[in-house]
Amino acid sequence: MSEVLVGGIEAGGTKFVCAVGRTDGTIEERMVIPTLHPEETIPKVFEFFKKHEISALGIGSFGPVDINKDSPTYGSITTTPKPGWGNYPFVAVMKEALDVPVGFQTDVNGAALGEMAFGAAKGLDSCLYLTVGTGIGGGAVMSGEIVQGLSHPEMGHILVKRHPEDAYQGACPYHRDCLEGMASGPAIEKRWGKKGAELSGEKEVWELEAYYLAQALVNYILILSPKKIILGGGVMKQPQLFPLVRKNVQTLLNNYVNVSEVAENIENYIVSPGLGDNAGIVGALVLAGKA
Amino acid sequence: MSEVLVGGIEAGGTKFVCAVGRTDGTIEERMVIPTLHPEETIPKVFEFFKKHEISALGIGSFGPVDINKDSPTYGSITTTPKPGWGNYPFVAVMKEALDVPVGFQTDVNGAALGEMAFGAAKGLDSCLYLTVGTGIGGGAVMSGEIVQGLSHPEMGHILVKRHPEDAYQGACPYHRDCLEGMASGPAIEKRWGKKGAELSGEKEVWELEAYYLAQALVNYILILSPKKIILGGGVMKQPQLFPLVRKNVQTLLNNYVNVSEVAENIENYIVSPGLGDNAGIVGALVLAGKA
Ligand SMILES: Nc1ncnc2c1ncn2[C@@H]1O[C@H](COP(=O)(O)OP(=O)(O)O)[C@@H](O)[C@H]1O
Ligand SMILES: Nc1ncnc2c1ncn2[C@@H]1O[C@H](COP(=O)(O)OP(=O)(O)O)[C@@H](O)[C@H]1O
Ligand SMILES: [Zn+2]
Ligand SMILES: [Zn+2]
Repeated sequence: MSEVLVGGIEAGGTKFVCAVGRTDGTIEERMVIPTLHPEETIPKVFEFFKKHEISALGIGSFGPVDINKDSPTYGSITTTPKPGWGNYPFVAVMKEALDVPVGFQTDVNGAALGEMAFGAAKGLDSCLYLTVGTGIGGGAVMSGEIVQGLSHPEMGHILVKRHPEDAYQGACPYHRDCLEGMASGPAIEKRWGKKGAELSGEKEVWELEAYYLAQALVNYILILSPKKIILGGGVMKQPQLFPLVRKNVQTLLNNYVNVSEVAENIENYIVSPGLGDNAGIVGALVLAGKA
Repeated sequence: MSEVLVGGIEAGGTKFVCAVGRTDGTIEERMVIPTLHPEETIPKVFEFFKKHEISALGIGSFGPVDINKDSPTYGSITTTPKPGWGNYPFVAVMKEALDVPVGFQTDVNGAALGEMAFGAAKGLDSCLYLTVGTGIGGGAVMSGEIVQGLSHPEMGHILVKRHPEDAYQGACPYHRDCLEGMASGPAIEKRWGKKGAELSGEKEVWELEAYYLAQALVNYILILSPKKIILGGGVMKQPQLFPLVRKNVQTLLNNYVNVSEVAENIENYIVSPGLGDNAGIVGALVLAGKA
């Protein structure tokens, strides 16, 4: 086990997970704090990392973020409505305080890296990680490289067909009835008047949820063809969702994607995170190793 | 100019374009023949290439094809209904006859490579090439690598929302009203009763076409974030389609993708092929250079 320690931050909209560990994914110490105004949160982050000697830091952050290394605002969170975090120069602040190289990615790209290195996609050269929680976000690694171009993907906002009997207008402030607008945790809560966790027994809730998620997965498969699809986030804590999503994906594809992973072994293709709730923080340690 | 000659084949469902040229994209000699049964077409291909000394061959082929190098059927066309071409071992046949290394990709991945090297995406490290013709197919290069995983993408078959006033049921034998089902050349012809080329003046035809194409482009942007989108194929010969598609993309994104390429300079983002109808054959020469 390597004795060189690195730091990782999984910076979520609700909470920050900070860890000191190794690039082999092992964690030495961990801290979880709520995401408040940066003036409150960031000093606690400094304090945590200053207790250890780390050689690099990896950050998987809520977004949107600027991950274009040629941009003057590289390493910042950009247009978030969260007080204090708009245009926040995250990488610059951490570099200045800790004086180590910093790797920076979206939270979901970080989780995809973690799952590739030590989780459900271990040994593969591609995977897609989708979180279905307060928002919906996806990150993909293809041929070993994080998929990014003009910017990072925003795959939670793709278009979906409305279910003909679904009268809910949608929760996305930008697009109303995009995937996130129809299938995020808050969309479930607004449509049915109860939180997802209280709706476990309601069959029609999860059939409708699977109807939307499967459409998205079909499009991801047809556009990227990743070797594994990993579904995480609070909403996916409903285990009955997995078989419903898989069945809908096969129905929609109608045998068009004629590979055994999709046609025959779909239980091993669309899966939960191998690292459970640790995908993001382990991914941040992996990012530190690449910084 | 390099004196080493390479060969390229753009193997389409309608015609084969064969060329001898150089990996800098220059073409020395070219031959176009219809795609008949392989017993008729392939001997003509041999004859053409045997006239020149080539050091490598690149093939961009109609599909679906097996591009998985670990597969026993690597280099073959798989499940096409075209007589004689199902399970056709294209690479093996060409290697045996010409005894040179052979690069093999889908036609659209080849075109994307050609446009990256010498066309509209020159100097960039990512682009997406979409052909809208008899079928709809897309290929993407991200961070310099062709996007492929389980298999090659099949982005022409993604789901789209039907226009509420569009009664046409859709032409895709697998999915009926997927993108290809609603927006390919044959879909236009079946919906309106005339070929696309004869409908130039019919505003509503192209508004509906742009409605579907823009949905697909929005999903490609949100999932891949390519640095350039190149639209080719017979249907895109209607120049009025470009501004309609661009406008619909911006409307659907509703400023969510806040990068100047999409928000401000979309005329330079969604474009025609820089190589015109040569994208595919030039891409095949590029593939030969990588073989
Ligand atoms: N067991 C559960 N079943 C269904 N939905 C849940 C469950 N747990 C949390 N959620 C929903 O998931 C969302 C929170 O997602 P989560 O991934 O935990 O956090 P975040 O997305 O904020 O990082 C909330 O909308 C919540 O209602
Ligand atoms: N000028 C045009 N305007 C509209 N549609 C066209 C035009 N030219 C060809 N098409 C349509 O495009 C399809 C052929 O696409 P093309 O890209 O030329 O070939 P293929 O896809 O077979 O390689 C046909 O359905 C045809 O009707
Ligand atoms: Zn949205
Ligand atoms: Zn289809």
